[in-house]
Amino acid sequence: MSVDIIVRGYHLDIYQHVNNGRYLEFLEESRWDFLGRHCLVEQFQERNLAIVVANININYRKPAVFGDVLRVTTSISAIGNKSFKFCQEVWRTENGEPKDLVIDAILTFCLLDNASQTTVAISGDVRAILESLLEIGE
Amino acid sequence: MSVDIIVRGYHLDIYQHVNNGRYLEFLEESRWDFLGRHCLVEQFQERNLAIVVANININYRKPAVFGDVLRVTTSISAIGNKSFKFCQEVWRTENGEPKDLVIDAILTFCLLDNASQTTVAISGDVRAILESLLEIGE
Amino acid sequence: MSVDIIVRGYHLDIYQHVNNGRYLEFLEESRWDFLGRHCLVEQFQERNLAIVVANININYRKPAVFGDVLRVTTSISAIGNKSFKFCQEVWRTENGEPKDLVIDAILTFCLLDNASQTTVAISGDVRAILESLLEIGE
Amino acid sequence: MSVDIIVRGYHLDIYQHVNNGRYLEFLEESRWDFLGRHCLVEQFQERNLAIVVANININYRKPAVFGDVLRVTTSISAIGNKSFKFCQEVWRTENGEPKDLVIDAILTFCLLDNASQTTVAISGDVRAILESLLEIGE
Repeated sequence: MSVDIIVRGYHLDIYQHVNNGRYLEFLEESRWDFLGRHCLVEQFQERNLAIVVANININYRKPAVFGDVLRVTTSISAIGNKSFKFCQEVWRTENGEPKDLVIDAILTFCLLDNASQTTVAISGDVRAILESLLEIGE
Repeated sequence: MSVDIIVRGYHLDIYQHVNNGRYLEFLEESRWDFLGRHCLVEQFQERNLAIVVANININYRKPAVFGDVLRVTTSISAIGNKSFKFCQEVWRTENGEPKDLVIDAILTFCLLDNASQTTVAISGDVRAILESLLEIGE
Repeated sequence: MSVDIIVRGYHLDIYQHVNNGRYLEFLEESRWDFLGRHCLVEQFQERNLAIVVANININYRKPAVFGDVLRVTTSISAIGNKSFKFCQEVWRTENGEPKDLVIDAILTFCLLDNASQTTVAISGDVRAILESLLEIGE
Repeated sequence: MSVDIIVRGYHLDIYQHVNNGRYLEFLEESRWDFLGRHCLVEQFQERNLAIVVANININYRKPAVFGDVLRVTTSISAIGNKSFKFCQEVWRTENGEPKDLVIDAILTFCLLDNASQTTVAISGDVRAILESLLEIGE
């Protein structure tokens, strides 16, 4: 599951590289795409659940520069009792193929019950939904 | 009424100048400060009104670069029947004094009734509130 | 000439609409796409010229919300002696067709000589390049 | 070493909380302030060095909402042979005092030689500069 993003002038900062914070928008773009394709937005809403980020651990491997075509991937890599993890990567592509790893990140999310505003255990049908995505992986 | 903002590395873009879109955040920062100081956020909320932007006309006079200390000003410059205008400027300062005009902008806002989601006439006490701010000007 | 952008959670602000400043990134995205498709980036670089924004006049017609698919268009609408204008629009689409006008904007740009850092007249082959794009319009 | 930031309408996202990516700008703002106060920008420039981020590990403890006054702290927490670490926190304040921990993060940076574009060992006077800051801590 991936989206392609072309690096534009407004993505750069004083170092003429994509700014470290901008990558979090690139990752979020790819997650929304992932959530949308698997109808997760609706399925969480029906259950009055939201997903909230608890931790982001992101490695900056190589800089990306103006004109680079980046591929941003998203998969679910682990499901615990109270949290689950996305594995996301940003690759610089060449002729449409991933070439250099720019970013890799593990992002830990919890499920929040909108009514009680507390995190809930990942169990039952919600767990089943997430596990079905774990299997299809990337 | 003004806020000072130091130009940082993440404000710049490929041209090493503050990006054209970032200035709209600088202007919004100064407007929130203006609205807050005059308790306008609360006064509009009490009346179930929101202010919504209808037009921004912004002149880019000079570029701002890393380390510049910018002063962003906000005043209300005109009040019509259905809209009112903010006049906003961004000045590069030197030793705490405005030196070069970087940006000037006229921003037209309407009042939206949150319940009906329609714009409303600027009249009665809401008009009085805005007019009292028109007088104090800058 | 257009790009499509899906409205994501990070594009919204306190009003749950796309933030006024974010649209300037959407417009810039579409201009970079336009400049790239017509090889303008390279042609300006060869002549050691940069394009710099002088004015943006942007109308906010309707709000855009989460999940909207926006089409951002770019065309060159006028060429003067010292400046030229982009006309840009953002449309909310339905089933791939433009439905509601969200934004329209006129953006005035100058040509900057990178060596002298002064604006230059739009004449000769640079004028010819821009005029050829004026003709193809949208 | 800290900067205060008031949460504005444009910092929020679909969840009405400060967006996860925006915090990286808040952290960067505080680091530029730290670097500026200790004259590190100039000292690195004189040596033709840049600092580049290698990893960010950020915990999202509590959400921040409109009107919160956040205090963003920066200190240097460790210095290795090839990298050093910033420890940064974001606190929600009440009456000017830190009250709730919103964010804590460890950020690993390397030193890049601008000429060779390779990372260099942290030794000699550069190490001494960083160690002097380690001592003063927060």
